[in-house]
Amino acid sequence: MEAELLREGERIDDLQRQGRRIIQHPGRFCFGMDAVLLSAFARVYPGEKVTDLCTGTGVIPILMDSRRPDAFYRGVELQSESADMACRSVRLNGRDDNIVICEGDVRAPDTLGRPGSQDVVTVNPPYVRAASGMQNRLDPMSLARHEVSCTLLDVLRAAAWLLRSHGRFYMVHRPERLTEILTGMHEMRIEPKKLCLVYPKAMREPNMLLIEGMRDGSQGMRITKPLIIYEEDGTYTAPVKAIYEADHVEDQFTLL
Amino acid sequence: MEAELLREGERIDDLQRQGRRIIQHPGRFCFGMDAVLLSAFARVYPGEKVTDLCTGTGVIPILMDSRRPDAFYRGVELQSESADMACRSVRLNGRDDNIVICEGDVRAPDTLGRPGSQDVVTVNPPYVRAASGMQNRLDPMSLARHEVSCTLLDVLRAAAWLLRSHGRFYMVHRPERLTEILTGMHEMRIEPKKLCLVYPKAMREPNMLLIEGMRDGSQGMRITKPLIIYEEDGTYTAPVKAIYEADHVEDQFTLL
Repeated sequence: MEAELLREGERIDDLQRQGRRIIQHPGRFCFGMDAVLLSAFARVYPGEKVTDLCTGTGVIPILMDSRRPDAFYRGVELQSESADMACRSVRLNGRDDNIVICEGDVRAPDTLGRPGSQDVVTVNPPYVRAASGMQNRLDPMSLARHEVSCTLLDVLRAAAWLLRSHGRFYMVHRPERLTEILTGMHEMRIEPKKLCLVYPKAMREPNMLLIEGMRDGSQGMRITKPLIIYEEDGTYTAPVKAIYEADHVEDQFTLL
Repeated sequence: MEAELLREGERIDDLQRQGRRIIQHPGRFCFGMDAVLLSAFARVYPGEKVTDLCTGTGVIPILMDSRRPDAFYRGVELQSESADMACRSVRLNGRDDNIVICEGDVRAPDTLGRPGSQDVVTVNPPYVRAASGMQNRLDPMSLARHEVSCTLLDVLRAAAWLLRSHGRFYMVHRPERLTEILTGMHEMRIEPKKLCLVYPKAMREPNMLLIEGMRDGSQGMRITKPLIIYEEDGTYTAPVKAIYEADHVEDQFTLL
């Protein structure tokens, strides 16, 4: 079964969560801490419909499903090779009934589903603004990291299209883009409600942010306690250990 | 001399900086930690022209002048009693040549000075959105705390009017208003460049923010290390002690 699902150069990684595994290719984009944190930051309730944009290997729906198996997840990916890999990971975990992977382009929101059909949209988008001339670099790594095939505004527009009124939006991104993120979300009527800054160590500058928005929400945001990844000795802090280890269904979507 | 400058009910407080003192009235708005932090967060270079909007008692120009006496400060205040008190504080410190206080309304930027005439604008504005019906509460305390006589957008519009291209803007505000702050600054072409979150103690939520913007600046912001006010035992942290104690002219506008 496993051999059938693997293509040349790929490997199976253990997600250390409820036995969930994922297929990755070392030469393509592999998931990182940002995906793990986003999947724990997003609140999902039983029976909700969740769409993950720019899903890549499908790691975010697979991780969310390990926390909340009684919801319905869909991962949308532009690159067919990645979508295919994500599909096979879902099958590897035997979760075809709860997770669907489909090819799709966030630049065409109306092809992604009915407007207002989703309770939750998550996304770990490309972080880096594309430099001019980058349009020619269409390798999988560049597409995952740079805004070649989808910009921040494309992502927000697609999320706004898909979310029901008062539906929730969760994104991980870089602090230097904060102004664009908040102005873009506000413009798309996904009001920013909660911001969590992620610090590599205490008393450093943050290098990641997690944000929650609400479609048609009212103004006013909460900034959470700092989330610090490493102790001074290089081991994970208690909150990060809890994110990796928490296996119960209850209160695992309450990172902060 | 001191007695001449004091009105009934007022007192003179020592600012603990270069012998600077300030006149305050316990029944009116008295300055707090936010003013102290803002005056240390703002970068001012020799010879620059600095306008402090909503100056109140004039504490911010008086503190900035104690750090950088070779610049030119102006405090603008709507309430004539506060403006008068600020004037007398400037005289008390013998700094009439470097600090001017004037009455002015930020809702009418063209009455505040020539466009592009200032290198730096600072402001510690009213934090709280005015509730409906509050228009009738015109006591000094309400005006200082609530956006009765000037909103965030009024402040940003006035700052944008006064600042030269690439001039710097410094504001202290509340985290829950972050989206409005960033969207408003961006809209007024004062691009947010640096954000410092202020935490009462480590591992709490921030209750204050300091922001630097640049008129006509490019996009992209830095979020600094967290600024934590108190140690667990209730004493000031080292950075806060340094802000209160630093007396040298050099590098005192480099809080973070």
